[in-house]
Amino acid sequence: MTASAGRTTMKGPMATLAKPALLLDEGRARANIRAMADKARRLGLRFRPHFKTHQSRAVGRVFREFGVDSITVSSVDMARYFAGDGWKDILIAFPVNVRESADIRALAGKVRLGLLVESSDALRLLAGRWSAPADVWIKIDVGYNRAGIEWDDISGAEAVARETSAAAPLRLKGLLTHNGRAYGIRSLAELREVHAEALERMRLCREALAGRGFPGLEISVGDTPSCKSLDDFRDVDEIRPGNFVLNDVMQLELGACGEEEIAAAVACPVVAVHPKRNEAVIYGGGIHLSKESVTTRSGESIFGRVCLPSAEGWGAILPGTAVASISQEHGVVRTTPDILSRIRVGGLLAVLPVHSCLTVNLWREYLGSDGERIATIRAWDRSG
Amino acid sequence: MTASAGRTTMKGPMATLAKPALLLDEGRARANIRAMADKARRLGLRFRPHFKTHQSRAVGRVFREFGVDSITVSSVDMARYFAGDGWKDILIAFPVNVRESADIRALAGKVRLGLLVESSDALRLLAGRWSAPADVWIKIDVGYNRAGIEWDDISGAEAVARETSAAAPLRLKGLLTHNGRAYGIRSLAELREVHAEALERMRLCREALAGRGFPGLEISVGDTPSCKSLDDFRDVDEIRPGNFVLNDVMQLELGACGEEEIAAAVACPVVAVHPKRNEAVIYGGGIHLSKESVTTRSGESIFGRVCLPSAEGWGAILPGTAVASISQEHGVVRTTPDILSRIRVGGLLAVLPVHSCLTVNLWREYLGSDGERIATIRAWDRSG
Repeated sequence: MTASAGRTTMKGPMATLAKPALLLDEGRARANIRAMADKARRLGLRFRPHFKTHQSRAVGRVFREFGVDSITVSSVDMARYFAGDGWKDILIAFPVNVRESADIRALAGKVRLGLLVESSDALRLLAGRWSAPADVWIKIDVGYNRAGIEWDDISGAEAVARETSAAAPLRLKGLLTHNGRAYGIRSLAELREVHAEALERMRLCREALAGRGFPGLEISVGDTPSCKSLDDFRDVDEIRPGNFVLNDVMQLELGACGEEEIAAAVACPVVAVHPKRNEAVIYGGGIHLSKESVTTRSGESIFGRVCLPSAEGWGAILPGTAVASISQEHGVVRTTPDILSRIRVGGLLAVLPVHSCLTVNLWREYLGSDGERIATIRAWDRSG
Repeated sequence: MTASAGRTTMKGPMATLAKPALLLDEGRARANIRAMADKARRLGLRFRPHFKTHQSRAVGRVFREFGVDSITVSSVDMARYFAGDGWKDILIAFPVNVRESADIRALAGKVRLGLLVESSDALRLLAGRWSAPADVWIKIDVGYNRAGIEWDDISGAEAVARETSAAAPLRLKGLLTHNGRAYGIRSLAELREVHAEALERMRLCREALAGRGFPGLEISVGDTPSCKSLDDFRDVDEIRPGNFVLNDVMQLELGACGEEEIAAAVACPVVAVHPKRNEAVIYGGGIHLSKESVTTRSGESIFGRVCLPSAEGWGAILPGTAVASISQEHGVVRTTPDILSRIRVGGLLAVLPVHSCLTVNLWREYLGSDGERIATIRAWDRSG
């Protein structure tokens, strides 16, 4: 449809929507999964996708069709949620929260569990209450400076390695990093540089630990921009990208995806049109999109890109148009006079989120392309 | 407790927490409600508190103890949620979403319902399907430029007034504004100026409409900073503050509350300590706090203030300490060497949110001061 055709002729999953909804383009999500699974296979890497982006058992099952059997999650609850759907090899890629030791121990009795440790303190608190086998990954900071042992603090890593080895049935598995700097780049060349430096640091750390009596450690890396755009994963054993399944405006701005790879959007009713300011007000705010913003290449800070609805879901990104500001329920779409003239009170717009992980986290379900409702962890009753 | 006493001796609701939780200091919330109810009574204003901040039936009931019987909400769902707990006079303070006409009509048959209209387009789409009585408030833009008819566009307001009067059983009730500029001020003098200007514009608009045949329109205003800090509400009939019940770091930075008035915090386990950077990593990220940030008077952008747990909930704000960055699950607390030396892996910190409305929106329940669980709308099963 075109906007000027009005809401009455709209077809597709959005046609009857009364209020904001999270849309999933399952065809695109499936294509994204296939592409990354193929790439991992081609490069000989274990593919352990991060499920914190889609947070849905139904979406998780699509990965199984492509041979995926190991996954990454970001919390103990998320591990329990996916374990309840038959996943047997789960890495919790967040520095272990020792206050959850009881739940972690229970999980380790049911699945092959991976844990992230970045200090002797955490390891001691964990191991003191430990009984089941689990894989320990040492979290390495390759320069992002958020979490982890600094890559050149070999003594720090060695201490954790030594204590892990002494804490059977915990098993020392390898070195893991999240190279968050890949989200700060502005060109493919820069991404390549940042990625190469991260891998080099992981290699040096691994070699140093081998020299101190811990040979054969695996290397696990994760960020979506590198996993999507680059091919050099020499010496890497495992990749853990997550965002690629849905992508978003941040990936688009980074050049890590095309807009036809963005598989989630939020449908937002139009509640006001302000021609003087070339703005429309949508029912779609921080509680629907999250307050994540991104600075575009032209220097604006935006909260989403905007598309018209289509029979299949949504159309191409509207040029010169963005969610320019956002509050709890309101979004302000700034656009051109020409496009604004095609936007009507009572119509719908589809907003591509800046950060799909945070957007999905706000919803109990997706609305699929055929109108089916696809539950997320937010609808999980915690009993199974 | 003091942090150096360690987690084993901690008392209070946080003592046994395994993972992040939203804490409510009910004593503070009650005192905040009492103060605002008293002030409204003293000034002769109808008090119609906005419930989008606390989003909880249990917290809503406390307002009843102080004589409140009319409320504000920000969505049709929220109106249904509170109507289901006996509220009979509900204003949906968001430009009416005509796609929800069926639900709105059903609500109007059950409670005294107020609606916000800012265009003839919306009114026509609404009135065409209308049957039950409802109050119509014309949304006026006094300079915030988010939504509403510009205060000096008298013809625009007159058109809506005229069409409302012709659309019985819809009743033209008054003029309503949200003076969002009150959140941009840096001094009480500036707040006073911005508030006085907003009221003057509302008065002028009301007088102009009276001159065109619409006398006796009420005036409704809303923002928490003005309602908390100022006393001049001449010609105002109704105030709709919401945030004051919990307050937050944004209000604190604006000077609109003291820290002893902040009634909500997020308890976050400490998962790493990095002395080289004077940082601790907490299990508390955008999915627990929201990604809202505020620029402090000293020019830093922060995502929360940080306190130590106490027997009652949490202690005073730690000086020189803030959540400096945030990702999906991680928060990075930057602090002083002295304070960092008292923070331990496995301990807890309490984070005061930047914007309590958005933080509360992420949670199914609060943990009260006595350890009781207090449900929010997120736990509502929508059946009543």
